Amino acid sequence: MNKQNIIKPRKLSGFMELDPKDQLVFDNMIDKVKQIYLRHGFLPLDTPVLELSEILLAKSGGEIDKEVYRFNKGDTDICMRYDLTVPLARFVAMHSETLHYPFKRYQVGKVYRGERAQKGRFREFVQCDADIIGNGELSLVADAECLKMVDEVFEALNLQIINQISNRNILFGYIEGLGYGKCTKQILTILDKINKIGKDNAREELAKLDVKEKDIESLLQIIDKKGNFDEILSEIEDISQNSTFLNGIKELKEVYAYLKAMQIDENKIELNLSIIRGQDYYTGTVFEAVIPNHREFGTVCGGGRYDNLASYFSEKKFPGVGLSIGFTRLFDLLLQNNMLEDIPATNIALQIIPLGNTLLECLTLQEYFSKQIICDVAYEERSFKAKMKDAGKQEIPFVLIVGENEVVSKQYSLKNMATSEQFSLSKEECLQKIIATLNTK
Amino acid sequence: MNKQNIIKPRKLSGFMELDPKDQLVFDNMIDKVKQIYLRHGFLPLDTPVLELSEILLAKSGGEIDKEVYRFNKGDTDICMRYDLTVPLARFVAMHSETLHYPFKRYQVGKVYRGERAQKGRFREFVQCDADIIGNGELSLVADAECLKMVDEVFEALNLQIINQISNRNILFGYIEGLGYGKCTKQILTILDKINKIGKDNAREELAKLDVKEKDIESLLQIIDKKGNFDEILSEIEDISQNSTFLNGIKELKEVYAYLKAMQIDENKIELNLSIIRGQDYYTGTVFEAVIPNHREFGTVCGGGRYDNLASYFSEKKFPGVGLSIGFTRLFDLLLQNNMLEDIPATNIALQIIPLGNTLLECLTLQEYFSKQIICDVAYEERSFKAKMKDAGKQEIPFVLIVGENEVVSKQYSLKNMATSEQFSLSKEECLQKIIATLNTK
Repeated sequence: MNKQNIIKPRKLSGFMELDPKDQLVFDNMIDKVKQIYLRHGFLPLDTPVLELSEILLAKSGGEIDKEVYRFNKGDTDICMRYDLTVPLARFVAMHSETLHYPFKRYQVGKVYRGERAQKGRFREFVQCDADIIGNGELSLVADAECLKMVDEVFEALNLQIINQISNRNILFGYIEGLGYGKCTKQILTILDKINKIGKDNAREELAKLDVKEKDIESLLQIIDKKGNFDEILSEIEDISQNSTFLNGIKELKEVYAYLKAMQIDENKIELNLSIIRGQDYYTGTVFEAVIPNHREFGTVCGGGRYDNLASYFSEKKFPGVGLSIGFTRLFDLLLQNNMLEDIPATNIALQIIPLGNTLLECLTLQEYFSKQIICDVAYEERSFKAKMKDAGKQEIPFVLIVGENEVVSKQYSLKNMATSEQFSLSKEECLQKIIATLNTK
Repeated sequence: MNKQNIIKPRKLSGFMELDPKDQLVFDNMIDKVKQIYLRHGFLPLDTPVLELSEILLAKSGGEIDKEVYRFNKGDTDICMRYDLTVPLARFVAMHSETLHYPFKRYQVGKVYRGERAQKGRFREFVQCDADIIGNGELSLVADAECLKMVDEVFEALNLQIINQISNRNILFGYIEGLGYGKCTKQILTILDKINKIGKDNAREELAKLDVKEKDIESLLQIIDKKGNFDEILSEIEDISQNSTFLNGIKELKEVYAYLKAMQIDENKIELNLSIIRGQDYYTGTVFEAVIPNHREFGTVCGGGRYDNLASYFSEKKFPGVGLSIGFTRLFDLLLQNNMLEDIPATNIALQIIPLGNTLLECLTLQEYFSKQIICDVAYEERSFKAKMKDAGKQEIPFVLIVGENEVVSKQYSLKNMATSEQFSLSKEECLQKIIATLNTK
C-alpha cells in the first residue's frame, strides 16, 4: 500500500470503544444483570436496531426527532432506535394475541441518539431494560417486583444504591387539591427541575403561573419529604382529600407492603416525593436510583408505571411497569472514577512456554489444561527469556516451562509468578495447584 | 387514542425478530461460542455499529457500497458496519503500539447489509468472529488454533460438522506452475463457482481463457481432491515443483501437525482443495465448515489466513487468521429445520399460586426460592382454577399452592405437573425436590 493511500484510522466521536480487558468486565457485569432478570422469570427480546420511522417516531411529537439517526434506503424511511420502549410497544401490539400475560421481557441492547457529543454522553449506548406488561390490567405486585430487581441488580454489581420511590398521583392529586388542576403539567415541570434552577427561581416561575405564595411553600415542602416509608406516609396521608392524591397514597402503601414481603433491604429504598421523572407517560409508581456516595453520577437506574404501552399501535390497553439502566454511561462513570474493582491484567491463568523443540507437546498440554482453565501457549518465535519477561508483564499467574527433559519425564516446571516458587509436577498436579491457588484469591 | 390515529405495527422486512423463548436459546448458544473463544485466551472487543464511511469503505472498491446503509448526520458521512473485520483493522491500526501480540480478540455483534431481502438472507445479522493478529509475523500455530476452535464451537453447539481445509497457495502455485500465472484470479473465480455452474460450463469458461484442454482436466482433477490429510498430501505433493505450490504444501503439513498435537477429532476435518473462498485477501490457510447431513445449509463457518489486516490504515504489517460464524443465518436454518433441541416451553421452574389471602406470604416464598431456581408468583387477579390451568398450559414443571392453612403450618402443597403427584412439604424440602427432579431430566 502506497503511503499516500493510508487513511488515518479513527472512530466517530461520542462512541464508546473499550480496551478489550475493560470490555471483559463490561460483559461480565451485563451478564450479572441478565441473570437477575432471568431469575425473575423475564425472557429476552431482541428487536432490530432499525425500524420504520413512522413506527419509531409515532409517539415522539417532534422532541426526539433532532437526535434520531434517520435516513432513506431506497424508498424506505428508516430510523435507528433511540430507546427500547417503542420497539417493545410495537412488538406487543403485533403479537398481543399470542403473548402470555403478564408479559415479562428484558432487553439489553444498543440505542442511538445523535445528540451533541459531550463528556459522559454517548451517541451509542447499551440499555438494560426490564418491563412487565399486563393485558388490560396489571397488579401492583409488578411494580414491587421491578423495584426488588433494582435492588438485586446493584447488589450483584456490588454497588451501593438508594432507590428513591414515589407515586406520581400523590403530587398530581395534591396540586389538583390545591386548585391548580389546569396547570399541573407546568407545575410538575418546574418542580422536576428544582435541583437545577434552585428554589428561588422555582418560586418565581410558580408565581408566574398564579400559584399563591402559601401554596408555593406547601409545594416546596412536600417535595422535600423523603425518608422512611412509614414515617413519611403517616406525615402526609392526611394533608389532602383529593381522590387522586389518596389513590397515590393507597398505591404506594400497597407497593411498600409487597416490598416488605419480598424482604427488600429497607436501607436501599426511600420514599422521595421529589421524584417526578420527566416523561409524560408515567402514571403511578416512579423511581430513580442513585449512588449515595456519588450523587453527582445522577440517576443510575429509573423507571415506573405507565397506563398504556402501545396506545399508538393498538386500541387495546397494555399497562406496564419497567426499569431501565443506561449501562454505557454507568460503566463510563465507574471506569473514570476507578470504581471497577476487578479489571484483571489478564484472564489467562497459565502460559505454557516451550524450551527447545517442544512446541507440539505444549499444544497437547494446552488441550489438556484448557478444558478447565484459560491457557495460552507462547508459540511465537522469540527467545525463552523474552517470553518469560512477557508473561511477567502480562501478570499471568502461572507459567509452565516445557523443555525436552520435561517431555521425557512428564514432570513439568510450574512457576508461580507472584511468589517465584517453582515446582516439578505432573500435568494433573499442575492443574490442581493452579486451580487451588486461583480459588483462594 | 383515536382509532384513526392507530399506526399499524410492523417491522422492516429482512430483519429477524425471535419469539422470546427462541431468543433465550439463541442467547444460550451465543454464550457457548463466547465461552470457547474466552477459554482460548481471546478477549472481547465491541466496536461501534456506526463508522465514518471513509474508514468503512476504504477497502471495498465499490462492491459493497450498494448494500451498505450509508447516510449523513450533519456534515458527517456515516455507514453502519457490514462486517467486523474492517472495524478490527481500524482498531488495531489505532492501538497498534499498546496491544499485546499475538492479539486475540473475538467480537459478537450485529452487522448490516441492505441487500434485497430473500429467504435465509438477513439485513441485520449477528456474526461471531475470532481473529489472531500478529505484529509483523504470526506463527502457523495460530491457524491451527482457529481450526481447533471451529471444532470446539460446534461440539459445544452439539452440531456435527466437517471443516474443509486448504491452503490457497497450493492451487495458486499449481496454476502458476502450469503457466497461467497471468490469469490466476480469473481461473480461481471460475473454479470457486464450479458447484453452481457445473463442470461443463467451467470447462467452457476456462477454454475462453486459453487454458489447454489437458490443463483444464488437471485443474478439475485437483479441486476434486478431498479427504484424509495424509492420503491427499502424499497424492499431490509431487505434482508440481512451483515454489508457491510447495510452500502451500509445507504450510498445510505444518498446520496439520499442530492440529494433531491439539488432538483434533480427525473425523471433523478434511483436506479439500476446492476450498478457495471468494475474498481476495486470504493468502494461506482457508476453510469452510459444513454440516454433512445438511450440505444445503452451505458454509456455516469460514475463515482463513490473511497477510495484512490493516493495509489501508497503517504502513505496518499485521498478518492474521480468523474465523467467522454467520450466526443469525445458522440459527434460522436450525429453527426452520427443527434442529434446535432444547427450546423450553418455559424457563420457569416453579409457579407459586396464592389461594385465599396469602399473596404476601407467596412473595416471601418467592424471595426464598428465586435464589436458586426461576420462580414466579401468579399475582394477577384471576381464579385459582384459571391459574392452575395456565401453569399447565405454560408447561411449568412445579406448582406451589399456598393456602391460608399452609401459611400457618408452613407445610406447602407442591404439585409435580408432569406426574400430577402432590406433596405436603416444608419450603426447604420443596426446593430440594424441585432441584432433584429437574436435574434428572
